[in-house]
Amino acid sequence: MTARLRCYRCNETYHPPEQRCVCGEPLWFDVGDGFAPDPDAPGLWRFRDLLPVDDPGGLAHAAGGTPLVRTSRLDDYAGCRVHVKDEGEHPTGSFKDRGTAVGVAAALDRDRPAVGTVSHGNMAMSVAAYAAAADLDCVVLVPADIPPERLRIIAQYDPHVLRIDGDYGRLYDESLAVGAETGVTFLNSDSPLRVAGQKTTTLEVLSAFRPEAPDAIVMPVSSGGHASGAWKAIRDLAACDALPATPKLCFVQSAACDPIAAAFRAGDDAVSPTTPGDTIAYSIANPDPPSGTRALAAARATDGAVVSVTDDEIRDARARLARDAGLCVETASATSLAGARRLAADGVLAPDDRVVLVATGSGFKEASAAASDADPPTVPLADLQGAVAGRL
Amino acid sequence: MTARLRCYRCNETYHPPEQRCVCGEPLWFDVGDGFAPDPDAPGLWRFRDLLPVDDPGGLAHAAGGTPLVRTSRLDDYAGCRVHVKDEGEHPTGSFKDRGTAVGVAAALDRDRPAVGTVSHGNMAMSVAAYAAAADLDCVVLVPADIPPERLRIIAQYDPHVLRIDGDYGRLYDESLAVGAETGVTFLNSDSPLRVAGQKTTTLEVLSAFRPEAPDAIVMPVSSGGHASGAWKAIRDLAACDALPATPKLCFVQSAACDPIAAAFRAGDDAVSPTTPGDTIAYSIANPDPPSGTRALAAARATDGAVVSVTDDEIRDARARLARDAGLCVETASATSLAGARRLAADGVLAPDDRVVLVATGSGFKEASAAASDADPPTVPLADLQGAVAGRL
Ligand SMILES: [Zn+2]
Ligand SMILES: [Zn+2]
Repeated sequence: MTARLRCYRCNETYHPPEQRCVCGEPLWFDVGDGFAPDPDAPGLWRFRDLLPVDDPGGLAHAAGGTPLVRTSRLDDYAGCRVHVKDEGEHPTGSFKDRGTAVGVAAALDRDRPAVGTVSHGNMAMSVAAYAAAADLDCVVLVPADIPPERLRIIAQYDPHVLRIDGDYGRLYDESLAVGAETGVTFLNSDSPLRVAGQKTTTLEVLSAFRPEAPDAIVMPVSSGGHASGAWKAIRDLAACDALPATPKLCFVQSAACDPIAAAFRAGDDAVSPTTPGDTIAYSIANPDPPSGTRALAAARATDGAVVSVTDDEIRDARARLARDAGLCVETASATSLAGARRLAADGVLAPDDRVVLVATGSGFKEASAAASDADPPTVPLADLQGAVAGRL
Repeated sequence: MTARLRCYRCNETYHPPEQRCVCGEPLWFDVGDGFAPDPDAPGLWRFRDLLPVDDPGGLAHAAGGTPLVRTSRLDDYAGCRVHVKDEGEHPTGSFKDRGTAVGVAAALDRDRPAVGTVSHGNMAMSVAAYAAAADLDCVVLVPADIPPERLRIIAQYDPHVLRIDGDYGRLYDESLAVGAETGVTFLNSDSPLRVAGQKTTTLEVLSAFRPEAPDAIVMPVSSGGHASGAWKAIRDLAACDALPATPKLCFVQSAACDPIAAAFRAGDDAVSPTTPGDTIAYSIANPDPPSGTRALAAARATDGAVVSVTDDEIRDARARLARDAGLCVETASATSLAGARRLAADGVLAPDDRVVLVATGSGFKEASAAASDADPPTVPLADLQGAVAGRL
């Protein structure tokens, strides 16, 4: 792969496998200045003009192409006109498959292809699954105390799982060094390949609204990789003269761990590490986000915002998504709706705004998060008609 | 809705809300003789020329449009060239959303729209979710002894759940009678509206192979509703002169409950009820399938087959799908792969045959079905590089 990398901040250019600028900020791939979607290509490969790799076939065909659903029953609650991008509809149930598909495609171009990741959640499942389908060795680095149920769901794809005894926070950097030595392509949360894949969430959203554009896109932010992808999509389309208007990029964190929202509130130029508290949105609780400062810049550059929401707000939003939109989302994904509601209350979003909430992952991996107090009545078969009529 | 219904066996015609012919067999919708896919329509609505209702918008846009994945690592195991249609990529994680989307669209055309279903699994979730999104009353009839975890996942969509004290097997007929009296559109397993929606699985498969056709399509069979849809898709395209070749329709059951496979083996013209045994593929264990005889006819008419597989074969196939294709499927869905392997061994499928396995549902709702013996090694952070290198 000969594609060029660039720092969004210094404009300095690099080549793979470089991942970070000398200034410390993460890199992303340059694109050309032409773009024609290929309507016959499967999933995210319709945007191949804007991707650094070619379609490798196989499971990569299932990455992207998720539905965008108008969910009008949520409008009053959210305080704006709501559409949901349902990223749970992926082979491993989350948007991570987009970045993984592009990353695995790139790894296949190497001499000794193997992939790895530092994750014990959606990203671990995703990398393990796409590696399995492509017949690649895969190394997944998990914390020593990973819960058994989390381990089981990763292990079914049969990667090499290593429990790491030591500071898990250091693994982001350590894994890149190990990757350089061993030839393993580590697809971490904000690696340039992953961001290239994950920008297609927003490319699809903007494509669906053509020739107009949504007023805002709201998504959870953790490492900042997906948020960076959203900004990159906007910049790519602008560079190709294919952006009708710039949607506000709004990112949402859990109040228990909100370093990016804190920096936004404080008017800081950079995100500082925080001490995380407990939250039901554990999968987005990154206290030291490697692309946090880039996400902050994305929100500012698009007239958006970064907000945080409480566990109670998240829980309520998750229930609303099921009850009023028919969508069972991961707890962390419900921050999108909770965040939109907060942003509307704050005046950042207006009632007539067309707003896309990104539901980043499926709730089916978290069965225990569903409401647990259901105790429906028992009806004798002979009384069925009266019982049904009584409910209408 | 003025569309006409027909019996596949007698050719007798009816009008909705009729569901069964006087001969006892289930009805399906007639289509016209013209068909042009609409490439700009979302999901299954690209086949609207062949559907009895119009796109109602909203969550219905997320029904259909699932990926078809070439999974070459499964070829040796299956004994043929394998593609997987991943139906788990739906809002409620199964193909049921196709039939539900069409059924809810039809209910919305009525004066007092409300929907219902007899199910305690995927179909219950699906109907409850689409009703929630469309703001319809929804009645879900479940057995009195439904497990709490199953109840929770249905209840999150807030339908009217009624536990039925009595013979659950009688509810298929009873619910139709109650629906006629109360105005509730009961979307049971093989209702004509549901079959119309579920035929789009096969319409999409055949569309993806154009201008050729796959040699066979293999799917689980339970009530026979999805299997009927597959046959209907083939017949619709043939009627529109848009079928390059007829794929063999092959259906798979669990050996513990295989009334349709038993009738196929015996050369019978009709399926007789059986006494079910326990099986890990509980969601396809229907001992008295209402469209069983139609499924049997579909297999015979297309030179296909109906086979059954053991729990050990299903378990092994489920693990293979994760390990070699990156797909976490519902246990019952793994019968497709187990069945293809059996059919290849029996000579029904040839090594060069291009075979589509329908993975009907996501495995993420069944976390406990994943392999449970994972016990990866613990590595000190300082030894990471050696540990990674040692796995390659
Ligand atoms: Zn820089
Ligand atoms: Zn008849």
